[in-house]
Amino acid sequence: MTAKPLFSRTLRGSVTSVGEEALIRSIRRWIGAASPRPPAGIGDDCAVIRPARGRGLLTVDPLIHGVHFDGRVSPRAAGAKLLKRNLSDIAAMGGRPCAAVVALALDGRVSLAWLAEFYKGLARESRRHRVPIVGGDVARLSGSFVATLALAGEASGRILTRRGSRAGDWIYVTGSLGRSLATGHHYLFEPRLAEGAWLARRGEVRAMMDVSDGLAKDLDALTPRGAAPALFGAMLPLRDGASVREAMCDGEDYELVFSAASGARRAALEKAWQRAFPRTRLTCIGRFVRSGAVPPDALKMGDYRGYEHLR
Amino acid sequence: MTAKPLFSRTLRGSVTSVGEEALIRSIRRWIGAASPRPPAGIGDDCAVIRPARGRGLLTVDPLIHGVHFDGRVSPRAAGAKLLKRNLSDIAAMGGRPCAAVVALALDGRVSLAWLAEFYKGLARESRRHRVPIVGGDVARLSGSFVATLALAGEASGRILTRRGSRAGDWIYVTGSLGRSLATGHHYLFEPRLAEGAWLARRGEVRAMMDVSDGLAKDLDALTPRGAAPALFGAMLPLRDGASVREAMCDGEDYELVFSAASGARRAALEKAWQRAFPRTRLTCIGRFVRSGAVPPDALKMGDYRGYEHLR
Repeated sequence: MTAKPLFSRTLRGSVTSVGEEALIRSIRRWIGAASPRPPAGIGDDCAVIRPARGRGLLTVDPLIHGVHFDGRVSPRAAGAKLLKRNLSDIAAMGGRPCAAVVALALDGRVSLAWLAEFYKGLARESRRHRVPIVGGDVARLSGSFVATLALAGEASGRILTRRGSRAGDWIYVTGSLGRSLATGHHYLFEPRLAEGAWLARRGEVRAMMDVSDGLAKDLDALTPRGAAPALFGAMLPLRDGASVREAMCDGEDYELVFSAASGARRAALEKAWQRAFPRTRLTCIGRFVRSGAVPPDALKMGDYRGYEHLR
Repeated sequence: MTAKPLFSRTLRGSVTSVGEEALIRSIRRWIGAASPRPPAGIGDDCAVIRPARGRGLLTVDPLIHGVHFDGRVSPRAAGAKLLKRNLSDIAAMGGRPCAAVVALALDGRVSLAWLAEFYKGLARESRRHRVPIVGGDVARLSGSFVATLALAGEASGRILTRRGSRAGDWIYVTGSLGRSLATGHHYLFEPRLAEGAWLARRGEVRAMMDVSDGLAKDLDALTPRGAAPALFGAMLPLRDGASVREAMCDGEDYELVFSAASGARRAALEKAWQRAFPRTRLTCIGRFVRSGAVPPDALKMGDYRGYEHLR
């Protein structure tokens, strides 16, 4: 695979060669039917969207060159990843995505051919999930490429937050963990929207989040006060020969981790899951225990660190 | 005024010196009461917000170092500007702002002292307009600083879009135009939220937008098919000795431009405006006429260009 380069070697193929107005017209063409007509879509000061059913959700995540993608990722996959990162956040609350806006900050040397593929990848993903791209902005940024997508969603039923776990609760994770960068999972993943909505309807599920910075780091936010996770290396669902350390620390898994009440009928939960999602693994990886009561054979959480963005 | 520098000269005072987790804790402290507790505020996968009354609005705008601010703008003013740019878009539809999320992409050398002031400026503006900062993201970006804010709003009554003007309609603008950079107006401006909402309730007002890229360029989007704006230099409200060219082209005015029906009782509109906004100028700057019927003494629009972001 020869990936298209992000930066154009000639002025002719670059964003600068067409200027802002023509670029915005091109973006609208690349996005096509993924954006409705204004004011419901791109073209007015704000996008007009229908109000959320139930409660509204709002999230924002960027895609940055050199951080979230590089030359090994095709522009279409990069565009899709920008939306999927945000969809994963909606999934983590058990919600439904409604509408997205995209702010692009980019160097004038960015290649038009690359950008066309990027938007086509974004638009395709947006159609697949029925999330219209309703607006955005384009601005100049010297030497880099940052696309930031904000996603509005809704949750008509129960919302699963990160709070609510108790000592004794079981800890579950969807899919597999680790080696996300090495395997391309970091852009190939499917956001767990159906799974998240399903879990929000299960009364025994207490709290949920997505695993994006590595389980070791993210699990902190799910851990109730006065408790600690007792995880067992042998129980972790490892992706493609990942080590326990890679599963704990690599990040960009975009899987769901959730807690289920200690008294839950685990066999019933797991059986219902298998009927609903026969192709998606669900693994109990341990439970929350009272601090100080972590069994000696459990993983020592202090030995693992998740991804730190700014070091 | 000695402005705080964006980049720290020592590792000790930089974002890198504290890492992501501590930085996010600091940001939550700097934002303070401008963010409610999670899941309504910062701290979960998505923010949970109440559904829009009427219709929802969604917009996104970045603040980029070297483009939207530089060393002459204090970090507090830069933080306020990030929100105000987006508020101006909500104002341009006649809507109300509801909740904001902020994605920060920044170099590890960014100064913590600068960033603290930036967030305090943002939080102050957010409290003034009662727009909670409900979530966000922090990521690494080599060599630069990009803050992107997405703003959800609502409009329970009429929404004013850019469409709906007809040949014969009068063209009005709020405030003054030109020399926004030279005078500091580009960060000192007040978003025209009350004015926009008031105008949306006036039946004679047909279409509206905000002036951000220069009147010459922006007015295109308000101009009906088969018509052209007939503007008169002597009628333009000039800011602090701005020339007609500066008023037409400078950009970053963040004023409202709107059309009023040709048959409107202009004196009544202007009198009601003066009662509602005694300190804000409202100026009729011309009207839309049929293409080819532009009077010879009107400004030749082709002679003026607005701000082009990518050239």
